[in-house]
Amino acid sequence: MNEERIVTVQASLRDRGIDALLVSVGSDLPYLTGYRAMPLERITALVVPSVGEAALFVPELEAPRVETSIEVRPWGETDDPFDRIAAALPGDGIIATGDQMWASFLIAFQNRLPGARFVDAEPLMAPLRMIKDEDEIAALRDAGHAVDGVADHLSTVRFSGRTEREMSRIVSDLVLASGHETVSFAIVAAGKNGASPHHEASDQIIEPGDAVVVDFGGRVRGYGSDTTRMYCVGEVPDGFEEAYAVLERAQRAAVESVRPGTTAEAIDAAARSIISDAGYGEFFIHRTGHGIGLDAHEQPYIVQGNAEPIRPGMAFSIEPGIYVPDRWGMRIEDIVVATRDGVERLNRSSRELRIVE
Amino acid sequence: MNEERIVTVQASLRDRGIDALLVSVGSDLPYLTGYRAMPLERITALVVPSVGEAALFVPELEAPRVETSIEVRPWGETDDPFDRIAAALPGDGIIATGDQMWASFLIAFQNRLPGARFVDAEPLMAPLRMIKDEDEIAALRDAGHAVDGVADHLSTVRFSGRTEREMSRIVSDLVLASGHETVSFAIVAAGKNGASPHHEASDQIIEPGDAVVVDFGGRVRGYGSDTTRMYCVGEVPDGFEEAYAVLERAQRAAVESVRPGTTAEAIDAAARSIISDAGYGEFFIHRTGHGIGLDAHEQPYIVQGNAEPIRPGMAFSIEPGIYVPDRWGMRIEDIVVATRDGVERLNRSSRELRIVE
Repeated sequence: MNEERIVTVQASLRDRGIDALLVSVGSDLPYLTGYRAMPLERITALVVPSVGEAALFVPELEAPRVETSIEVRPWGETDDPFDRIAAALPGDGIIATGDQMWASFLIAFQNRLPGARFVDAEPLMAPLRMIKDEDEIAALRDAGHAVDGVADHLSTVRFSGRTEREMSRIVSDLVLASGHETVSFAIVAAGKNGASPHHEASDQIIEPGDAVVVDFGGRVRGYGSDTTRMYCVGEVPDGFEEAYAVLERAQRAAVESVRPGTTAEAIDAAARSIISDAGYGEFFIHRTGHGIGLDAHEQPYIVQGNAEPIRPGMAFSIEPGIYVPDRWGMRIEDIVVATRDGVERLNRSSRELRIVE
Repeated sequence: MNEERIVTVQASLRDRGIDALLVSVGSDLPYLTGYRAMPLERITALVVPSVGEAALFVPELEAPRVETSIEVRPWGETDDPFDRIAAALPGDGIIATGDQMWASFLIAFQNRLPGARFVDAEPLMAPLRMIKDEDEIAALRDAGHAVDGVADHLSTVRFSGRTEREMSRIVSDLVLASGHETVSFAIVAAGKNGASPHHEASDQIIEPGDAVVVDFGGRVRGYGSDTTRMYCVGEVPDGFEEAYAVLERAQRAAVESVRPGTTAEAIDAAARSIISDAGYGEFFIHRTGHGIGLDAHEQPYIVQGNAEPIRPGMAFSIEPGIYVPDRWGMRIEDIVVATRDGVERLNRSSRELRIVE
């Protein structure tokens, strides 16, 4: 599989007149080699020339953990890895660098190869990574099924009296117990904190009457899950139910709008128009969704201004929200995959407001 | 505190003839602002001009979670953040970029500011971050004390019959229960896997007779812990005890060599010479240690070729190891802080070989 992807990348490099791809930390590396590097100061780098053999440079002490069909070239603790890797790059060519490589690494290569031109690899890699194959969709489906179980189980858990941090810990444990290899995040935002979409779980105690945003995910066979459900402790806050009905309608409309030929921004508009028409437009302060795969966030982004046509195999979140400062916030999130004739929801747990203790 | 650090950085920028510092993900950001950004595709960026006011650009939806004394400038979902941030940078000056900024972000800035020259900020930031103040040392001390408790508790846990992954999970839970905010890593490498220093916990079942490398750490008030202890299941493998005695002696000698005026490479040599003289030199395949602070690995690196003089306030690991392929591996790791007249060990749990069930 990795060999096929390398061949595809090389064809794409030649089509674009790029001489080599240089990939370090980030998900392009596991996509092309099956190996995920540690995000540390010792550089791991894959060099894919437009013609010829690819090579994977790894710190010598990490070489034993690398399993890949690519040629592995370990570098020692007292070597200069940048000199060694630069020698494998075209000194006067165009080099596409992986999006999450550290800037300090890029500068080290720019200093060693002043005649080369460095461009962002994302326009090259995103078209390949955006379209998931059957194995990738199967992993996303299993990950989605696993978090659905967590969402349902949370309905039986007591929220009241625990801190957000304790609840986040419980969510993380459930994500691991459900079959994920790792937890990517476990947002728990109660009451007013719910109005901050990326709130960091705090020592605030969850109290009766709080609406709680719970947004969590992990990785199954390297691929991400990501879902958000709403839990109200005992009772529902004033004005919440009306807004929630609008949000649920907007989320469903956006999901149902997914089909080949529509665009990313049209899906955003499908959710946004319903929320705006109901008078909550100013409180929907983020895009409708993001692609998902080896990265928790990747292309396609479901946002105004992105005319990317939706094609079968694209996987992304649909997660509109309404955030009223100093009162509460709400979000409903599912991962979907575009199919040949429509859409498959990968999250199927109930989207009804859940009342918990 | 952040204000003082900004003032210090600005003086350092002027000393070096650099016009601005541009920091994104990575630990320079919390060091200078108190805020740790999410490592996602929406850029967070701090701009510190050599003269004038610093500004922190953040995605609008994350603005509510930012607590800092720096001026915050949110950017909206449909804005181009790179245009906005570039406008705050000197178009024809020298700009130092934070080491872990994504390469795609750096390329976006290079494209918008073709007249600017971008240099690595690490030579500017490392001298500041390497010397820990009292609060930083207190956090490192608390983190060290917390992992020591975990190391001791592990002596009472049954290893035999569990997979490495299950043990890694148990270690992670203990790290959180001991007062860490997050777990950074929990390496569990049993038997032959111990010969891979950065082994990823697998489904291999731990068996009687296995020597198990357990290397773990997390964050307390943002600052890291990192310790390694050795556990033998029931009995000690052939040849292990002799090597372990050498390793323990090497680790102690390296710790005792720490004092102001020595160098990073001299500390490495203190450990390495003992291991080499005992005939295990070829099996000590990594440097002796790394600095620790807001990053799990940072300067100073305790490695041959690094003549950095040791100064009071430097915090780093001392972690020699011996790795015999296809047999076993061993490592002993403590964090130490250089003091005015010597060294303080931040890990004090027993370094004796621990026999477990």
